[in-house]
Amino acid sequence: MGLIVQKFGGSSVADAARVRNVASIIIDTYKQGNDVVAVVSAQGDTTDDLIEKAAELNPKASKREMDSLLSAGEQMSSALLAMAIEAEGYPVVSLLGWQAGFRTDNVYGSARIKTVQPERLKNEIGKKNIVIVAGFQGLNGFDDITTLGRGGSDTSAVAIAAALHADRCQIFTDVEGVYTADPRKVEGTKKLAEITYDEMLELATLGAQVLNNRSVERAKKYNVEVEVLSSLKRVPGTIVKEVAKMEKMLIRGVTKDTDVARISVIGVPNTPGIAFKLFSKLAAKNINVDIILQSVGRNDTKDITFTVAKSNGELAVQTITDSFDLEEGSVVCDTNVAKVSVVGAGMETHPGTASKMFEALYEKDINIQMISTSEIKISVLINAEDADKAVSAVHKAFFPVD
Amino acid sequence: MGLIVQKFGGSSVADAARVRNVASIIIDTYKQGNDVVAVVSAQGDTTDDLIEKAAELNPKASKREMDSLLSAGEQMSSALLAMAIEAEGYPVVSLLGWQAGFRTDNVYGSARIKTVQPERLKNEIGKKNIVIVAGFQGLNGFDDITTLGRGGSDTSAVAIAAALHADRCQIFTDVEGVYTADPRKVEGTKKLAEITYDEMLELATLGAQVLNNRSVERAKKYNVEVEVLSSLKRVPGTIVKEVAKMEKMLIRGVTKDTDVARISVIGVPNTPGIAFKLFSKLAAKNINVDIILQSVGRNDTKDITFTVAKSNGELAVQTITDSFDLEEGSVVCDTNVAKVSVVGAGMETHPGTASKMFEALYEKDINIQMISTSEIKISVLINAEDADKAVSAVHKAFFPVD
Repeated sequence: MGLIVQKFGGSSVADAARVRNVASIIIDTYKQGNDVVAVVSAQGDTTDDLIEKAAELNPKASKREMDSLLSAGEQMSSALLAMAIEAEGYPVVSLLGWQAGFRTDNVYGSARIKTVQPERLKNEIGKKNIVIVAGFQGLNGFDDITTLGRGGSDTSAVAIAAALHADRCQIFTDVEGVYTADPRKVEGTKKLAEITYDEMLELATLGAQVLNNRSVERAKKYNVEVEVLSSLKRVPGTIVKEVAKMEKMLIRGVTKDTDVARISVIGVPNTPGIAFKLFSKLAAKNINVDIILQSVGRNDTKDITFTVAKSNGELAVQTITDSFDLEEGSVVCDTNVAKVSVVGAGMETHPGTASKMFEALYEKDINIQMISTSEIKISVLINAEDADKAVSAVHKAFFPVD
Repeated sequence: MGLIVQKFGGSSVADAARVRNVASIIIDTYKQGNDVVAVVSAQGDTTDDLIEKAAELNPKASKREMDSLLSAGEQMSSALLAMAIEAEGYPVVSLLGWQAGFRTDNVYGSARIKTVQPERLKNEIGKKNIVIVAGFQGLNGFDDITTLGRGGSDTSAVAIAAALHADRCQIFTDVEGVYTADPRKVEGTKKLAEITYDEMLELATLGAQVLNNRSVERAKKYNVEVEVLSSLKRVPGTIVKEVAKMEKMLIRGVTKDTDVARISVIGVPNTPGIAFKLFSKLAAKNINVDIILQSVGRNDTKDITFTVAKSNGELAVQTITDSFDLEEGSVVCDTNVAKVSVVGAGMETHPGTASKMFEALYEKDINIQMISTSEIKISVLINAEDADKAVSAVHKAFFPVD
């Protein structure tokens, strides 16, 4: 018995049957004596359909109007989910983001939550209502609707859990939890019972599409215990919290990220501050840089190689070409790469994780182009076509199949 | 130059091409130096589609949740229309009902506007923004979204025009104005240049689907000059105002209403107050009664006949059967009827209007079942299959084809 915040993504409410399934999960939780606040995304392809409609009228529509348009998606799904719960005879009320107290900054399209004013939520819970909240949206200082950006419903759920001091925040998805690798592609994967916020953050950043990054950051900041679990199969999921049991594992998982482009800048003058200038030009264009490698080139030059998100590849090349007086062909973008990583807080105190990973790759004859390490992860950049083979090999090295 | 409020219905914004057409009407008005506030309905079948989706999950969904669901329709169309105007390079902002200051009573599904707080509207107009407002919706005392009921966007537009003291409120439809009869069915109809509020109210009530009734009442109350005109053909429409030029016409139009059921109650005891009891029972069920006819029956009984909307027919029969101890078969509902009316403020001072109407019907051998008159209209109840013939005959009598 307690207060449970639940979040259901777009595929979990894609049609009437799935909406009914979600309603039954919520009702079961309520019947066990819990107060329930459920955050819901837009149904299935609603958001994409709306984006398409907007593009037909104006490919450069303002983000303010896009936010007003897209937030209608969650408005519809939240009302429909409430109706499905009404149909079963339980007390329920749906609230839009602004009704649920979400106040954000003024960045349309990817607003950050400033605060959740919980009066209305508390009031409805006090009346023993199940509360359905339209995720992904809030209200800014101009009294205009903002959206939190894609995946923002996770953040909505965690923010409510934090504001209400909920006992748990359950994120329902189409997987059963967080695995040591993608179970659809790698043999012998294991579902993790627990994982720390930091590990989850690394996994999210590295391409495990389970939880939105901002939501994990917020969960960590407010110490909200998050459970990732399936909306289709009712079994315990993975709990994300500050200190997690290690289950005798050094690492938590092996991930692959193919949304990577490698930019090579060849023949940069070998003068002080050149790297700073280069990366500050990129930062000014809001291009996030990941792995960086700097090497001595021919004569008085050096080569700088780094990775960015694929969608930023062209812009990065353009920015550097415009900013520096380089020979033609000296800025190269390679999108045929993938980043494979091992993540785990255990590795800091256990030497040999890196060598074990490299050995596994060597045995499969996979060439490592770049390496990046942090306290809880090791990433390598390799050819895209080797990625799945690499994940399997590395996973097998750390999680031997019994 | 002035402040113009415009309203565009669902068919006027049904697809991208029509949205662009509406955008061009708004922009033309703005370019002529006017401030423009445009109220928009949901696109095409959006509202019906949402109602269907809701019915699939819960045929008895609460009206509160229905309002939250349906108001998303206008939210989407208003943002899309704003984007289409942005695409042409004009300053524009879309506002939801609550952002535009609509405060309503708490009757979900058919809320009445209590006030329009015009601060935000004035603020946006002051910035020289074209303002697009999501029609049909407001906010009640619980901070919940309400809808004004079908046709409510007309009322939204008139309410804004009243609150802002607009110079004119233009209601764009798929007809060019108000005609002396339905031009698709009757030969030789004429478009009226002007018409009074009272005449328009009678026409609306009598089945001319041009303007929503509540919107005309509100326009009369606040003396808002309304123009009904076409969004497809740019010609002057019909102006609705307090005093209209009569153009030498006694009557304004001939209308037909087939949404009528005639209830006959035969053999009611001929005791005082029986009619009062009967109609108060119906009123308690929210059944509006229109034409009433009371006649002496056999023995000590009388017969009472009246008309109601078709959708209320069964309920009316049930209510009376449950309330009075009558012989079986003595309450009869006939839905095969139609009401044909002539409307015009001129008829009060010109005797002979009724006889002219009756003569036209007599010549076509059409039997009159019931008659009802007011200061500005005469209605007759006839067989449904005679309705079109009756309208044509009566129209011809009052508007001879040259």
